[in-house]
Amino acid sequence: MSNKSKFFNILKTDGKARLGKITTSRGVVDTPAFMPVGTAGTVKGVLPENVKLAGSQIILGNTYHLMLRPGSELISRFGGLHKFMNWKLPILTDSGGFQVMSLSKLRKISEEGVEFSSHIDGSKHFVSPERSIEIQLNLGSDIIMAFDECVDSETPLEKVASSMDRSMRWAKRSIAAFGSQSRKFIFGIQQGGFDEKLRLESSKILTDLNFDGYALGGLAVGEGQEEMFKVLDFAPEFLPQEKPRYLMGVGKPDDIIGAVERGIDMFDCVLPTRSGRTGQAHTRMGEINLRNARHIKDDQPLDFLCSCYTCVNYSRAYLNHLEKANEILGSVLLSIHNISYYQELMKGIREAISNNELKTFVENFHERRKIGDLLEL
Amino acid sequence: MSNKSKFFNILKTDGKARLGKITTSRGVVDTPAFMPVGTAGTVKGVLPENVKLAGSQIILGNTYHLMLRPGSELISRFGGLHKFMNWKLPILTDSGGFQVMSLSKLRKISEEGVEFSSHIDGSKHFVSPERSIEIQLNLGSDIIMAFDECVDSETPLEKVASSMDRSMRWAKRSIAAFGSQSRKFIFGIQQGGFDEKLRLESSKILTDLNFDGYALGGLAVGEGQEEMFKVLDFAPEFLPQEKPRYLMGVGKPDDIIGAVERGIDMFDCVLPTRSGRTGQAHTRMGEINLRNARHIKDDQPLDFLCSCYTCVNYSRAYLNHLEKANEILGSVLLSIHNISYYQELMKGIREAISNNELKTFVENFHERRKIGDLLEL
Repeated sequence: MSNKSKFFNILKTDGKARLGKITTSRGVVDTPAFMPVGTAGTVKGVLPENVKLAGSQIILGNTYHLMLRPGSELISRFGGLHKFMNWKLPILTDSGGFQVMSLSKLRKISEEGVEFSSHIDGSKHFVSPERSIEIQLNLGSDIIMAFDECVDSETPLEKVASSMDRSMRWAKRSIAAFGSQSRKFIFGIQQGGFDEKLRLESSKILTDLNFDGYALGGLAVGEGQEEMFKVLDFAPEFLPQEKPRYLMGVGKPDDIIGAVERGIDMFDCVLPTRSGRTGQAHTRMGEINLRNARHIKDDQPLDFLCSCYTCVNYSRAYLNHLEKANEILGSVLLSIHNISYYQELMKGIREAISNNELKTFVENFHERRKIGDLLEL
Repeated sequence: MSNKSKFFNILKTDGKARLGKITTSRGVVDTPAFMPVGTAGTVKGVLPENVKLAGSQIILGNTYHLMLRPGSELISRFGGLHKFMNWKLPILTDSGGFQVMSLSKLRKISEEGVEFSSHIDGSKHFVSPERSIEIQLNLGSDIIMAFDECVDSETPLEKVASSMDRSMRWAKRSIAAFGSQSRKFIFGIQQGGFDEKLRLESSKILTDLNFDGYALGGLAVGEGQEEMFKVLDFAPEFLPQEKPRYLMGVGKPDDIIGAVERGIDMFDCVLPTRSGRTGQAHTRMGEINLRNARHIKDDQPLDFLCSCYTCVNYSRAYLNHLEKANEILGSVLLSIHNISYYQELMKGIREAISNNELKTFVENFHERRKIGDLLEL
């Protein structure tokens, strides 16, 4: 298990923030890291080589979407998700738990697992901890997530507690189903809602199970940033210092910044590509809408300091034109920029931690956004 | 004018087919050449670098679309269409004549020009030979087309004749408006419908005006391949041997093959990208529909002999998956392949002419398509 002990190295800390390195057989991931989401076997609208050129070292694949279409057995027969979608670097897959709760209808949860209807065609499916791990192994994922039950931010405490208990039993079944895999890693998922005691209890159980890393689940489910940060003020430290910590489904740039300050190492979010498909660009000055008429004659790039393909080659006026003409290339170019923006942000964060300057970095981040984009024109 | 005399060189002939080279200040175009269409300042769905990697040496821009949105004056202020859309190689622009007739409503044609309503917002516009040339110069086009009147395949002969006469008067006004441009070139457009006498008359007038090249207009307007080839059996030879000949808006792979055999040097068509957005791939074995269920488990590339990005990296099963999931990347990957297919076809044609083997090449082309894709499985 010597390679497992080297899976995650912490190189430097700055306050609670950690600079680290995850090492997998498919490549290294510098942390804090952002993982673009490849929901259905594609980071929407972007060629894999451009996802990589934007600075991505790992992407996320969705178990729920891929089990329904095209099916994990088919992907396995094609040599796994990496080969199927032509992404050679590491892939982390979620367990499907969150999507089963949020996307599917007619779900029936039992101790054994979840029976649900596909949101695509209504067909019946069953997923359990064992089946989730099997699917993720079929996909050839490098980092596999334990199967958990997810509750939303309105759930009463007793239900949060019983759900956490079940998720911990499922975590145990997940790690048993995973078995011993020399080149793959499995993360457990801390649950417990906004309750400190439950989060601590969950962490103790997971720590005993000795996962390779730990995610914080049940956050970014509609509670708002303030509420989320309150939990992040205590929850990450309940997990082993020496293992990577992953905040699932987060988030907006300032969510990420605040979470890094609170000791989180990994993030994933659909925002860069979803924004890109709706005419939105993330920049150092904040978010801008390319469909806005103020960009019609604007010869600036999206962001002067950005060196991505889009910013080097195109004006806001051109992007405004593509948006108005509903051209696919608008979505493509904005998605490329947005992924690059996120990866540049992570790089900046890592450099700041390395130089013990995270506090200044965060201040500058908020200061630039306060000035905004309009005044810089 | 020494650079003008070198604009087009014929290197070799094989029957009526010609191997040639067009030289512009932005690069060389080997003929017979296919120009992908960049209607609204983008070859739909494909990054310019991938258009180039697919083997394209020139693209076409649409005067009608760009004059309406974002406007040629705006593009001029941005340094021209090349800079605006980040395409560094040559651009040929059409004159807008065809789209004014086919896309706009409420058009009013006079000797002066055409008044029409935008198909986008109903706004009123006017385009004349002088205005068309001005727009194309604003765009910074390398090869500019004379402004002509287009009639459809059902038009009675008298109307075809009077329309051709008007197009020839407009050709004269176009070349006068173009003036002397040391690094740009202008093509006249032969008209005359399916009538040999009118085509000859049109050619004589255009030849006297001494254009840099000549297009054949009024074809590919719904008449069918047989009717078009009948015209191509005589019409190209009415034009000066030493100038390039461009068949506008053509076409399907077998249209191009037949037209090259009849002495055509240049083509443009939206088909590769339009097919790509509707799940269709062009291959040596014919056209295939990636949405078809027979590709669900198909681990073949689109075309075994194709070395494009899509064929090197992806299976038909993956492309089928993207199509079913309505993923943008499906359109992107199929468009990249289809442009590559067209450019490989042109390269094959050029090599065949060079080796005096065009007849064999054409026979093999039709033979492979007759066998089709299904039997090769």
